[in-house]
Amino acid sequence: MSILVTGAAGFVGTNLIRKLLSEGEIVIGVDNFCRGSKNNLIEFLENPNFIFHEIDISDFSKYQKMILKAQSKFPIVEIWHLAANSDIPAGIEDSSIDLRDTFMTTLNTLTLMKEFNVPSIFFASSSAIYGDLGDTPLSENIGPTLPISNYGAMKLASEAAISAASESYLKRACIFRFPNVIGIPATHGVMLDFIKKLIATPLVLNVLGDGTQKKGYLHVDELIDAMLFIKNASKEKVSLFNIGCGDQGITVQDIAEETVRQLSPQANILYGAGNKGWVGDVPRFIYSIEKLKKLGWSPTLNSAQAVKKAISEIIDQEKA
Amino acid sequence: MSILVTGAAGFVGTNLIRKLLSEGEIVIGVDNFCRGSKNNLIEFLENPNFIFHEIDISDFSKYQKMILKAQSKFPIVEIWHLAANSDIPAGIEDSSIDLRDTFMTTLNTLTLMKEFNVPSIFFASSSAIYGDLGDTPLSENIGPTLPISNYGAMKLASEAAISAASESYLKRACIFRFPNVIGIPATHGVMLDFIKKLIATPLVLNVLGDGTQKKGYLHVDELIDAMLFIKNASKEKVSLFNIGCGDQGITVQDIAEETVRQLSPQANILYGAGNKGWVGDVPRFIYSIEKLKKLGWSPTLNSAQAVKKAISEIIDQEKA
Repeated sequence: MSILVTGAAGFVGTNLIRKLLSEGEIVIGVDNFCRGSKNNLIEFLENPNFIFHEIDISDFSKYQKMILKAQSKFPIVEIWHLAANSDIPAGIEDSSIDLRDTFMTTLNTLTLMKEFNVPSIFFASSSAIYGDLGDTPLSENIGPTLPISNYGAMKLASEAAISAASESYLKRACIFRFPNVIGIPATHGVMLDFIKKLIATPLVLNVLGDGTQKKGYLHVDELIDAMLFIKNASKEKVSLFNIGCGDQGITVQDIAEETVRQLSPQANILYGAGNKGWVGDVPRFIYSIEKLKKLGWSPTLNSAQAVKKAISEIIDQEKA
Repeated sequence: MSILVTGAAGFVGTNLIRKLLSEGEIVIGVDNFCRGSKNNLIEFLENPNFIFHEIDISDFSKYQKMILKAQSKFPIVEIWHLAANSDIPAGIEDSSIDLRDTFMTTLNTLTLMKEFNVPSIFFASSSAIYGDLGDTPLSENIGPTLPISNYGAMKLASEAAISAASESYLKRACIFRFPNVIGIPATHGVMLDFIKKLIATPLVLNVLGDGTQKKGYLHVDELIDAMLFIKNASKEKVSLFNIGCGDQGITVQDIAEETVRQLSPQANILYGAGNKGWVGDVPRFIYSIEKLKKLGWSPTLNSAQAVKKAISEIIDQEKA
């Protein structure tokens, strides 16, 4: 028996695989290294329980051949579908990116799960599916979900396709609506951006926007813990949960100040105008995790603590 | 200035075009006659304000050429995107049908609206996006939307893509979540099915399921009226509305009895088992139109009246 992880070389994939291997699972990883990095997999390569395939799963026939081969040795019982475009602005400029890397990878995964009788999918969705609902707390039972980026749109489209497949041939689906997740290996995001800037120019930190954007942040260790908790605790056929920090979050200014404090205390922070960093960014949202709390899971770190920990880890990563 | 209607030869398309032409609009129709019928367009073909193109808009380059040509003569200011797969069971069997005919036609439409600066889209979504929520009244502000068919999934995916495009380049979008719409030209649905069966075997009517499925029905004349009302009355950039009859609906048994009464009073009605006709069918739902009522629109016919009218029209259609 094996577990397939798509997007294996990405930020969440790497952390999930470490956890699954530590529990003795056989893990088949797949990645096209379009955004994921080969370096992220080095720690697993000598583990006999880890099998890696470098393919682009938006290419159906390559994906099909890979699964056929993998199945013959270790039947796949779960797919953790994490592969996706993670560059939101790029996807707004060119909608074909999210279509191919986020949605078609989901549809191909579902088609192959039908073909090869793989019963369970675990999907990395996103708070971005909610769009910009202002001060309305984002809980799973509100609507309409009107995403403002193709990233969010193709995550919502993927949820919808998984839901339809669950009615017809899947045994089980977990849909996790991720918050802003932080930690290492960091590939994008405001913390990595600030740290790179400060390493390049230690005396000044230019911040996009006025710094008042407020968001909640969850450390990736807690995200992995929450997903596995939901997998074990939820009895719904389609288990759809927001995963988040449960607090109102911290501002970009807080993050800038913490980064400067840890990395370059003498730097001046210069702010821009407006509270939207880029088209498709949701400037402020209140992310409800009441459903997950009722199931029995709560994070151990608040946003400020998660940010502090992640900044420290990313600084080490960037200086390594 | 012109209005482009995709799915021009379909059930709703035909009725919409009749209305738009009656108001003096120049209408460009497009259809691939995959499900729409050439016969449906006969009444418009001598109208100088109607221009028709037979192409498959899931083929991007053909669609692009068509718009380029059409734009040069009459700049397109609105697209009414009605083209979609309408055969829900077929789409459950083969997910590529809804992907191509429902979702890719939407994505191609959006990409071309960006390229040619077409400001406004009017989109035929569906109550199917809600999935099976049991007794929860389906209003626009509930979630999660977990469709149980690829039809519903690709309609929801289309909504999501339109929403993202509205944030970035569209001036305006109206998303209409259609109920069960009835009238002529009928191409599918329970009434047409019953009428065809009764014409073939006038003494017996076999009903799929136990006849207890209860749904609301709206006559297509009212649907067109509601869409144009929303277009004029709603000020939201993304105007998303359920359109429906506003009542609790009538049962399949009521429809069977009315059809028999009008067409073949001597027929015996034989029922099957269960209250789901087919995978992907939502057996019963309460469809809220409170948002639309607040905007100022209500239907004039209830479900029973709409069904009676439609059965009479479909009988005439099938006997012609």
